[in-house]
This record gives sequence, structure tokens and C-alpha cells, in this order.
Amino acid sequence: MSGLTYKAAGVDYSRKEDALRRVKERIARTRRPEVIGDIGAFGGLFRASGLADAVLVATTDGVGTKVELARLLDRDEVVGKDIVHLCVNDALAMGAEPLFFLDYFSTSRIDPDVFARVVGAMADACAAHRCALLGGETAEMPGMYAEGAYDLAGFLVGAVERDHLLDPATVHEGDVCIGLPSSGLHTNGYTLARAIVADAARAVTVRAAPATDDDIKAFLSLSRPDLRGATLGDALLAEHRSYLEEVRTLRAVAKVRSIAHITGGGWEGNLPRALPDGLGAVIDRSTWTVPPVFTILGGAGAVPTEEMWDTWNMGIGLVAIIDRADERGALRALPDAIAIGRVERDAGDRRVRFAS
Amino acid sequence: MSGLTYKAAGVDYSRKEDALRRVKERIARTRRPEVIGDIGAFGGLFRASGLADAVLVATTDGVGTKVELARLLDRDEVVGKDIVHLCVNDALAMGAEPLFFLDYFSTSRIDPDVFARVVGAMADACAAHRCALLGGETAEMPGMYAEGAYDLAGFLVGAVERDHLLDPATVHEGDVCIGLPSSGLHTNGYTLARAIVADAARAVTVRAAPATDDDIKAFLSLSRPDLRGATLGDALLAEHRSYLEEVRTLRAVAKVRSIAHITGGGWEGNLPRALPDGLGAVIDRSTWTVPPVFTILGGAGAVPTEEMWDTWNMGIGLVAIIDRADERGALRALPDAIAIGRVERDAGDRRVRFAS
Repeated sequence: MSGLTYKAAGVDYSRKEDALRRVKERIARTRRPEVIGDIGAFGGLFRASGLADAVLVATTDGVGTKVELARLLDRDEVVGKDIVHLCVNDALAMGAEPLFFLDYFSTSRIDPDVFARVVGAMADACAAHRCALLGGETAEMPGMYAEGAYDLAGFLVGAVERDHLLDPATVHEGDVCIGLPSSGLHTNGYTLARAIVADAARAVTVRAAPATDDDIKAFLSLSRPDLRGATLGDALLAEHRSYLEEVRTLRAVAKVRSIAHITGGGWEGNLPRALPDGLGAVIDRSTWTVPPVFTILGGAGAVPTEEMWDTWNMGIGLVAIIDRADERGALRALPDAIAIGRVERDAGDRRVRFAS
Repeated sequence: MSGLTYKAAGVDYSRKEDALRRVKERIARTRRPEVIGDIGAFGGLFRASGLADAVLVATTDGVGTKVELARLLDRDEVVGKDIVHLCVNDALAMGAEPLFFLDYFSTSRIDPDVFARVVGAMADACAAHRCALLGGETAEMPGMYAEGAYDLAGFLVGAVERDHLLDPATVHEGDVCIGLPSSGLHTNGYTLARAIVADAARAVTVRAAPATDDDIKAFLSLSRPDLRGATLGDALLAEHRSYLEEVRTLRAVAKVRSIAHITGGGWEGNLPRALPDGLGAVIDRSTWTVPPVFTILGGAGAVPTEEMWDTWNMGIGLVAIIDRADERGALRALPDAIAIGRVERDAGDRRVRFAS
């Protein structure tokens, strides 16, 4: 009897160490002056001395099944950036800017190359946001995930001076909704998008059997006239846009009352989170053009219109609710911002009403 | 053509809302005075005003494949407690006490009952530690996990006054290692344990085919004389012990220099994290009795001794390194603490040397 070992059972610490070694330097570049000590301790340390008048804002999120698409198209670095950007935006929605980030990467068997691409991109995104990558957990759980699959979650702590906290309770009737364009689906609604793509890829092959990964890959790699020659794969793997700079600019020129990050649950699932009870929003959809990736998916899947708006951001990734007196200044300061609607009394069971 | 919906593709927000509704009150009981606002915002808010002289300590961890065992034996609440306790202990190892916690729960299809048991137990554990459950993400990712499987990660932020931070650099030769008993495997080495159990369960059935879930369940449910009549399932699902009270007591009576939480990687993987370069530890294993769960697993799997100590905690879940002058006081104040060894010059490629 040779005896069982942890490695034979599928967990290999040397693989984990190899993976971490590859990203060590990029993680080190995320260091901020408040950080104490080195990676490898039981917890990451961050001096709170500058935060006496601040409120900490903690957010957590995952990238959902966008990882599956990134994997299929060998573009894993995209989700590394995504997870940082989406947590940054959630913190922004409370008025906060990022301080530090931690990640949870979980898989059946660590592939050091894939890990390095994901966590390396994550570190770069943290550095670009002056956000310390303070720690993380890399879990190897044999049998929990399909071959090559992994899951990714992020945790971000930001801070905001007490009197800069955004509060939906301050929103008034007549306030203006300013929309900032998204780069695509960001990180939401991918299970629906992938189901549509799988169906469409099968239809192209004219076979009765479900589409194989190769069929889907080929379909996603076609240059499409309705995407000006780009591929659906490119459109679906556009990175989740971070709005840090835009929100800074906006807050400098306008009285921002609250912010909604349009993520899982689409418009009805998110915009009301930035509104007080009793108020709703009326949105004029003719103020922007829904990007082709949404119309292509909606058309291919015959997705009901309401379902599309309840699932995807439809081209607007963040909505800031501002004092109507500041509308002009806001639009002048942010060239791609759009006045998409206004706050009004809530009427009916849906709080977001589309005027067109 | 009826059209695809997000729900038809496998993601159902009403299931998520139902799951959250069931634990809302237990989560509300974790509230601390520093918490601002309600659950449902884009981020959780925590006032930092009391933290001016503090260092924030951030930890993240997962429960690994202990979830698989909890699921099999229908004891999902155990991992809800575990995830809090293990993050608390990691923060304690830096000297910090918990402030707030967030969780990431990810599955292919949310089972509101299982979710409520896991997150409810998590909320109770947070409340018991005066730790606010400030937020969480519940991800429904069809196809990512096997039927019924889920993954669980936790993020905890704690704080410690600057001059109470524990620092391995302060450890001296001759300092004493104080061990605190574990309740079992805690949350580490379960992939190895499960492989051993599956082999042993198959052997009992005298079949060539791999053990079924029912075989494993039956094997884990046998009353065993070597566990004084308890079952191996009970022993394997003992909850990860929290050492908050013990560490408080210890710090009140002794000069604690550093702390190691004995988790993934066992003794060699963790004790050196509490030591400065150039120093090692000599541990006298005759000072405590290794609990039967470890000897049963090691025997059944013919696991090499070194491998056992490199994977499991072997009966000691936390090691505090204290000034030798405080040894007596520490042992008097904490009845179940054990003086298990001392710090010495590092010699050789392994930094933990076993004297017996």
C-alpha cells in the first residue's frame, strides 16, 4: 500500500505557489502608502489613520458565467479586469473611491498560466485605480468544477468622507438622470447571452444536436457586418467599463444625489436602488442608440423587449441622478454623458417607466 | 418562436429574493452601531470614526470541499459557521478583532432552503462575534457546478490598534509556542479526507466499483468505538473553532508576539508565517494527543506521517508565540492551552522540527 497524499488527491501546493510567483511583481505595484507588511501574512494590513471622517464602503461581486466565454475564447485576462471594475463601480454608486481589493479564485485544478493572466490583469486594474491588491484566496477543489472551469469573486473596500456619501433619500422629483454608456453587457446576463449564442451556433451548423464548443467558437469568431466587421466574441468580451474618472468629473461640476450601477437585474433591478420610496424614473430610450450586441442577441433569441431591459444594461452602464440645475454643466464636462430621463412620482408596480 | 428569457436560461431572481427573505432578520441582528443604511444598497456602509489609530486587517478564505461533505450529510449550516470562524481566526493571527463580513455564495441553481441554512448560520456566527454581516453576493451560474453543489467564500475586515498589531519580527529565540486544541480538521485537507473515506467505504462494500454517495453516507454514519460511539461524519463535520475569546484572554495575561492559524498546508505551511527569517520552531508532539479522527484517516489511507502534518492541523488549530516569562500565567488563564514547543534557530530546509 503506497499511501494517499494530498497531491495524489488532487491538491498541489507547489502549483499554487508557482501560480502566485508569476504575478507577485504585478501585485507589488498595487501597493499604497497605507499598506503595511508583505503578502503571505494571515491578513492584509491597511492603516486607517487617514479615515477618521470617512465611511468605509464594502462591496462584493462575481463575474458570473462571463468566465465561461472568456475561457472558450482564451481571453481570461478580461474577467480579471472586469472583477475590479465592477466592484469599483459598486463603491462609486455609494460615493466612495477604492482603497483595497481581495479576490477569491476557485477551480478544480489550478492552471498557473490562466491564473497568472486573470490575477495579473486584476492587479493591473487595481494599480490603475490606486487600489491595493491586499490579499486573495486561491482554492483548488478537485471535482467541484468542470475541467478548466473556474470561478472568480472580488471584494473591495473603499472610503468616502461622511458628507460626500451618496444617499437616495436626497433625490427630488424633477432631478435629471444622466446616463454613461456601457461597453457592452459588462458582466451581466451572460447565461442568457450564452444560451442564445449556443442556439444560434447550432442553427448555423444545420444539425439537430446541440452546438459543440468548436461550433460556438466558430460562430463567435465570424466577422459581422452588423458589428462593423468585428466579431460577436469581441463584443461579448468587451471589458466591464470603470466609471471612476467620469464620476469624479461629474461630482466636480454637478450636485450628484445618487448613482445606480446597471448590473444584474437590468434597469428595474438597479435604478430604483438609487431612488427613495415613492419616486420613480421616466427614461427616454430615444436619447441613445442601443448597441448592436444587444439587438443581435435579442433578435437571435427572440427575447421579449421587457426581458432584455430587465436583464441587460442595453447600452448604459451607470446612471447618476443630479440636480436639474447642473444638467448643462454635466453634459459639457462629460462628452459621452447623455440626459436620459428624470425623476418623477412613482406610479404603478414598475418604478422605471420608459417614455419611448 | 416563444423567445428566450433569463429565467428559461436558468437564472431566476425571484428564487434569489426568496432565499434572501428567509435570512433577513438573522442578518439584521448582526448590525453594529457603526453600520449605516440598509441591505440592498450597492455597498455596505461602516463608519470609520473610531478607527483613527487602527490598522484594518482584511482576510478572505473559502471552506474548500468540506461543503461537499456537509451537503452529503445534509448539515449545510456547519459551513456557514465555519466560513466566519476561519476568517475571524485569520484576523486574530494579525492581532485584530472583527468589524464586518461579506460572503460570496455561488451555485448552479439556488436552493432557498440550503441557502437559508448556510447564510442563516453565517449570520448567527457573525452576531456571536459582534461582526456586522455587511453584504454578500449570491451568484446563480447554471452549468458551472454539479446538481446541488455550491461554493462559499468569506471576506472579513477587522481592526487592531496600531500598537497591538502582532508582528513575527518581534519573535525571539526561546519564546514559547502555546497551542490551542482544534475541534477536528476545521476546514482543511478535506479533499484528502474525502478520498480516504471514499476508498474505505468502497472496501466495506466489497465491490470493485467506486463507492456511491449512499455507500459513503452509510460509512460516515456508523457509530465507531474508536470515536467513543460517535460517527466519522460527526467528527468530520465538527465546526471550525473560533479562538476569539481565547486570544483575548491570552493577550490579557501574556506578551503575545505572533500567532499562526494552522490551516491549509498544515504545520510547515503555517507556523513559519508567524516567525521571522532565521528562526524556526521545535514542537514536542508528546505534549498532546492527536485526536482519533486524524489517526483513523491516516491509518485508513496509509498517509505518510509527514504528509499528515503538512496537510492537517493534527489537533492544534492555533499557535500563539509568547514571551517565555508568561508561560505559566498563560496556561493558568487558559485551561485547555498547551505549551507545545519553543522558538529556536532555524536549521535545515524545514522550519518546524518535531522533537518527538
